Order: sequence, then C-alpha cells, then structure tokens
Amino acid sequence: MTNLKLTILGNGAAVPTAHCNPSSQLLTYEGNQFLFDCGEGTQMQLVKFKIRYRKLENIFISHLHGDHFYGLIGLISTFHLYGREKPLTVFAPAELEELILHQLQITKTILKYKLVFEQLENYADRPLFENDNISIKSFPLKHSVPCWGFVLREKPLLRKIKKKFVIEKKLNSEQIIKIKQGQDFVDSEAQVYPNDQITDSPRKPLSYAYCSDTAYDESIVKHIKDVTILYHEATFNNLMEQVADDKLHSTAAQAARIAKLSNSSQLLLGHFSARYNDTTILLDEARKFFPNTHLSKEGQTYLIE
Amino acid sequence: MTNLKLTILGNGAAVPTAHCNPSSQLLTYEGNQFLFDCGEGTQMQLVKFKIRYRKLENIFISHLHGDHFYGLIGLISTFHLYGREKPLTVFAPAELEELILHQLQITKTILKYKLVFEQLENYADRPLFENDNISIKSFPLKHSVPCWGFVLREKPLLRKIKKKFVIEKKLNSEQIIKIKQGQDFVDSEAQVYPNDQITDSPRKPLSYAYCSDTAYDESIVKHIKDVTILYHEATFNNLMEQVADDKLHSTAAQAARIAKLSNSSQLLLGHFSARYNDTTILLDEARKFFPNTHLSKEGQTYLIE
Repeated sequence: MTNLKLTILGNGAAVPTAHCNPSSQLLTYEGNQFLFDCGEGTQMQLVKFKIRYRKLENIFISHLHGDHFYGLIGLISTFHLYGREKPLTVFAPAELEELILHQLQITKTILKYKLVFEQLENYADRPLFENDNISIKSFPLKHSVPCWGFVLREKPLLRKIKKKFVIEKKLNSEQIIKIKQGQDFVDSEAQVYPNDQITDSPRKPLSYAYCSDTAYDESIVKHIKDVTILYHEATFNNLMEQVADDKLHSTAAQAARIAKLSNSSQLLLGHFSARYNDTTILLDEARKFFPNTHLSKEGQTYLIE
Repeated sequence: MTNLKLTILGNGAAVPTAHCNPSSQLLTYEGNQFLFDCGEGTQMQLVKFKIRYRKLENIFISHLHGDHFYGLIGLISTFHLYGREKPLTVFAPAELEELILHQLQITKTILKYKLVFEQLENYADRPLFENDNISIKSFPLKHSVPCWGFVLREKPLLRKIKKKFVIEKKLNSEQIIKIKQGQDFVDSEAQVYPNDQITDSPRKPLSYAYCSDTAYDESIVKHIKDVTILYHEATFNNLMEQVADDKLHSTAAQAARIAKLSNSSQLLLGHFSARYNDTTILLDEARKFFPNTHLSKEGQTYLIE
C-alpha cells in the first residue's frame, strides 16, 4: 500500500468554469504535503474537499501566470489568521516574492510565521526538497514565460531480507541494514551468502511528475523517465494543434506522446480549456497513443502505486 | 416591480469556510451592474450562480483587507482573456492601483481594455456614480484600516400624471414633463389645476447600503437614513462584543441598532465569522432589536422594493 497520493484541486486553464478551477494539486507522501501551483480559490477547494492541510510546508509555483498563483496570498493569509508558527517555503520564479510582500504590505499584515521564498532559477542542478525517502526536482518546460515542471521520486528502496535467514543467523541490526543495502553476508565460518539469495527485490520506487503549462517538448522526457504517474497539460485537442503551438500549450495527443516517450506508467490529463464542456474528446484522443490515460478530476485523490 | 436587486456572492469573514466565501456582492439596477468588494473566488461564484456579468463597469472595494479584494486581479484577467473592450472602473483605496499594476506586470499582461482606478479618498463630497436615475455615494466606516461604506439611492421619481387629465386637456409632452416634475397646470382660460389634483405620488425611491467591515458607529446613520435594505456586517454575536470592539467589527445586535437608528426597512446580516456553523444565533440576536432582519445567503438574489 502506497503512501504517495495526489489530490486534484484545480485542473482548468486560464478561465475558470463551473467544473474547472485554476491549477492546483496536493501531493502527500507519508507526513509530508506538497502543493503544486495555487490558483485562485485553492484554499476554498481544500475546504470543500475537507482536506486538512496544516502540515503543508512546501509550495511549488510552476510559473507566473495568474491561474497558477493568484490563490497563494489567500492561503498565506489564512495560515496567518489560524496562528501558524512553523515556516512555509514557496519555490517560485524570483519575481513572486516581491509581489507577495507587496500584498502583505498593503494589507498591513505582519506574518506570525516565517515565509521563505526560494527562487526556482537557483535550483537547476539540485533538488528542491530531499529527505531519506524522496526528492523533488524541477526541470524547465517550454512556455511563453519561464516555467518549471516538478518530479517527485522515491529513492531506491532497501532490499527485503528473508526473515528466515535473520532468525537462522541471529543477525543484529547492523548486519541487517548492510544486507538490506545490498551487501553479501559472510558468516563466522567465512561462508559467503550472495545478497540475491538472502533478499528479495523491493518494489519499484514510485514517482510523480507535474507538467503544468508546456508546448510539446521532447527535451522534458529525460527528466520524467519511467514515472508512475505523469500529469501533463492537455489544454486543446488535435484540431487546435496550431493554437496550441502558438500559445505554447499541448494537445491531448502531444501529452500522450510525451507519456509514451518517457515510459510513464499512467497519464493524467489536465489544464483543460474552458471550451471543452465534455473533455472525453481529449481522453479519447490521448488513449489512441497512450492507452493508460485518465482525465484528472477535481476533488479526486489518486493513489500513486 | 423593482429593477434593483442584490446578489450575494460571498458573506464570510476573513477565513473562508464550506458555506461562506470572502465578501462580494453584485447590485444591478436596470442595465447597470455594480460589484461591491471582490474577495478571492468572486469570479467562480459568478460562474457557479450562472450570473452573466459582462455588463459590469464599476467595482467598489471597501478597504484593503485581502478578503475584500484578492479576487479582483482574477476578474480583471478574465475580462482580458474574454476580449473585453469597454473600460472598467475600480473605486478603491489609493494603494490598490499600484498592486494591481504590479500583478499585471509580473504576469506580462497588457490589458486589451482600459482599467481606470478612482481613489475613494477623493470622493468624500461627491457621488462615485451618477446617472438620471440613481447615485452611489461612499461614507467612512470605523475599521482598523481606512474603510468605506456605499449607498445607492434612486433619485426622487416623477409624479404620476392622471391619464384622464392628459386626454381631457390634450397635453403635449413638454406640458406633461412639467406636471410630472410637480408644476401646477394653467389652461388657456387661465384656470389653475393644482399639481396634487392632477397627479398621484410616485413610489418611494429605493435604496441600498453596504457596510462591509465596521465597528458599531452611530456616525454612519446619517449616510444610510431610510434605506430600503441595509447590509451590515455582523461578524460576532453579543457574547463576543469585546472581541468585536477590539477588532473593530460589529455584533448582530449592534448591526440591528444601526438598522433601527437609520430607519432602514430591512436588515441583511453578513460577514459571518467562521466560528458560527449555525448563524441563526446571529439572526435571533438581531431580531430582538430589529424584527425585519434576515441572514444573507450566498447565491441568493434579493429584490430591493
């Protein structure tokens, strides 16, 4: 059972509709919550879907188009009003910090907690977040303004040691760790037990990639190789490929091609243009190229496993 | 049948809840739409309640607390994306213009229409809006930052001339207008017909006052005298009167006293603190002082008549 899950808060494009809010999604991994983008109304969506989000410590803003960040100041303010004390870190293009400070200044808000801004421009070669189990990295997308995708990957898991062997050899915890890490075991009589005979392979590490706004761009494939779920924008269908090109967005077919090229296990489509009352046209189009495609749905939680 | 109506888009206090969005309301009078405050998610509320709002030309922002204006930039952007051409005027405290321009600048948005800012500080002695039928004026509220209330009043209506008299005397349009304006009529034989014998009184002019965030303040009464509907904040109940005082908000009882002192016909309560799951406690409290009190409800349209 996985502890990695994704909840879609908003999957619409620039103009909100009755069914699609501006972009935002919450990724949780064990005790950690990560928010990717924070369009207008994100905090209301969290309330509507009864999601407790006080554990949130890291927010990632893909780019500075309003539908991806106009809800940030409201969320920051609500944390303040609820008496938040622990720091909140916002990874975003450099210019956002000044705007948020401007908003706090004209509303005469002196935050009760520390708000940290990290500029995405500074993270080309290092993870944005890392702990013992996971890392989150950014990579450039191809859009009309500087824009970043994000990929969370579990670190390689330890091998699963055979319990019978632990008991038989009366292993101590130090020995167990080394075996789990892949070492062979040598007993007191100098007999060697190859690692693959005393352990089982762990499950494949899980991963999730978020490609918010991007033209079709094969150069992103190397960053999202083999992900468990790929969320890729599919603003248009292929009848509008020229519009997609002009606006540096993708069609559903293009999203599917990226899913295929990257060997993703599953594709989740989003960032739907307001013109599609029925997005199954986008689903059908993508499935021709990549069968394991799904339409993201607001309020739905996806187990990444 | 009145042409003046009010739709509540948000009636919550600073922190949004499952039932209460941040402040916003749409007032319509014949062909005109006026938006009072524009908290986060206002444009989504308009979509949710299926309200066509492209006729909106004037927005009034009562003060610079985020729950009263964080939705403005989203609405401005959506008008832009929909190709708006006619100007939009925002009446607001002076500092808001710079913030909105900052937001447009970092999102690289060059608006296709003219966005005009009018500083509320400059309108102490003149109407914000005026046409043949109505005027909208502002007045100061008592809050922790500069804050304005707004009152829309119909101008005195013309007297209703008796049709029989028009036919009998074969009146021309010039004569009719003069009589409607209150003049007596003198016929060719110098006989005088007193105005009150040849006309009926028109109905009472309608009016609406919006008091967004304010401490109990009797000095506002003179500005909202005899209004048809008074919307007055009632953030707290009277058990929390001290908190209301400290935060420069009102209790439901205080709102009711203002309704009574101003001789309002009806009181609509709003700006409910997130602590009240059931706001009937506020309604019951206000009705003790002012029986014709109602709880504002999001999505509901109130005929002002």
